[in-house]
This record gives sequence, structure tokens and C-alpha cells, in this order.
Amino acid sequence: VISRSKGYTAERELVIKLWRLGFAVMRAPASGAKIKKAKYPDVVAIKSGKVLIFEVKSRSKLGSIYLHTAQIQKLREFAERASGVAYIAIRLPGSEWRFIPLEALEKVSESRYRISKELITGAETLDELLRRLKLIRTLDDFLEGSI
Amino acid sequence: VISRSKGYTAERELVIKLWRLGFAVMRAPASGAKIKKAKYPDVVAIKSGKVLIFEVKSRSKLGSIYLHTAQIQKLREFAERASGVAYIAIRLPGSEWRFIPLEALEKVSESRYRISKELITGAETLDELLRRLKLIRTLDDFLEGSI
Repeated sequence: VISRSKGYTAERELVIKLWRLGFAVMRAPASGAKIKKAKYPDVVAIKSGKVLIFEVKSRSKLGSIYLHTAQIQKLREFAERASGVAYIAIRLPGSEWRFIPLEALEKVSESRYRISKELITGAETLDELLRRLKLIRTLDDFLEGSI
Repeated sequence: VISRSKGYTAERELVIKLWRLGFAVMRAPASGAKIKKAKYPDVVAIKSGKVLIFEVKSRSKLGSIYLHTAQIQKLREFAERASGVAYIAIRLPGSEWRFIPLEALEKVSESRYRISKELITGAETLDELLRRLKLIRTLDDFLEGSI
């Protein structure tokens, strides 16, 4: 299936980025596996006691993204159990990534949430997200000598 | 492959146990996947800020278990990155589980570690492990009213 392999490639790219930044990273079993992917988030990354949970979406062009309520609930439950924070990780053309926290999602019906085009373009990049969470060092950190 | 599906069943059993105990649990992609399982531990479980990492071995009878050095190094690196603790989780007949911390493993050559039969029989059960780590409540906790 084309869409599955596209998602697979995006997940793999995110896993490699996070691993290189020093995270412990796990990917979920592929959706074709007997235990359905529905149970697990796509990627979980752990560093310095913080747990980041990602549902990965890959898009070849910018536009609204819709998610099922069940998928959001799964992410929320996992995040609560792990005392972590869950994000929708969106891979755009040119390997541009944007990260949307669950709370920012807009519920448009009983069964669906939407991420608008505007929300995606205004969202944090991986670098911005990790700096805000103090999971990568800024130049200031080095200058302050807090190494 | 028979041994893979046996390992798969054991992993699944451990995942379900830990999920029921309130953990956030991830299973690694199956060994047949393009991204090799060699990169990931079999199971990662998170609760109350603690990260437990498991390599799962299923045995139909009690005996020494051998592990490759590379596998141990992978677990050690993951545990360090996650600030977690790694265990070899052994499933014995009758759904008996035993948990051996990495430090208890005996290096028998450059390429192999051994877990002796005696080490397995003397090892902690899941219940004992989780009580020691204070990840499940004991009757005493309830009696002391520390709920």
C-alpha cells in the first residue's frame, strides 16, 4: 500500500532525527501486524525524564488534516499513562516537520478532529519544540556555562 | 518461523499484563520488518516517571539462556538514553515470568552472556519487581493510608 509505505518512511525519518539528538526512541509495530497499530502511537521518544509521543502524518502538499476521535483518545490515554505529551507530527515536502499538541486540535464532529492549514504553517518545528522543552541546548545555554 | 511466533506471543502477554497494571507500553516492530528489531528493545513500559526496558525470551523448559553481546549493548544504550532500567524478561511454562537485570548477566566470552538456570529460578517475578520499584501498591501501602 502506497500510503502505508509513505507513512513508514516519515516515521523512520523522525526516529533517526530523534535518535541522533540523544533520545531513546521506539517505533510501533507496522499497521499490518497482528496486534493492530491502533493500540500504539507511531513513535515514542524519551530523554531527560521527558516522554514525547508522536502520531506521524506525511503529506505531499499542505492542506487540512483530519483525525478520528478514537486515534486522539488513544494518544491521550498513552500520554496520561506515561506522564508524557502527545503531538501530531506532520511531515511536509522538503522534509519540513511541524508539531501540533493534542490540545490545539479542533473537534469538528463527534468522530473527527481537524488540523487546519493555518495551524500547520504556524506550528513549531522540531528544533523549536525541543528548545522549548529544554531537550536540546541553545547557544545561550553554552554561553551561560551551564554545561 | 516457529520461534519468532513463540517470542511474539510472549511479548504480547507481557504487554497486556503491563497495560492492565496502568503502564504505557510499546512493542518493537517485528523482527521481519525493514527496520531491524536489532535496533529496538522488545518492550518498553513507562509509569510514574519510570522507564522499564525488556528483552523477552520464551522457553518451553528451564535451562541456561545465552545472549549476544551486541544485544546487551543495544539494551544498555537504550536504557542510558531513557534513564531507564533494562531487564531480560523470561517466560517459562505455565506463564511463569522471571526478570533479570542486565548487571546480573554473566559474560562468558567476548561475544556472549549467559543466564544460568539457577539465576532464572532465583530471579524476581513481575509482582516482586514492580513492588520493589514501587510501581504497584502493596497491602501495607493501603493500610498506611498512603493512597
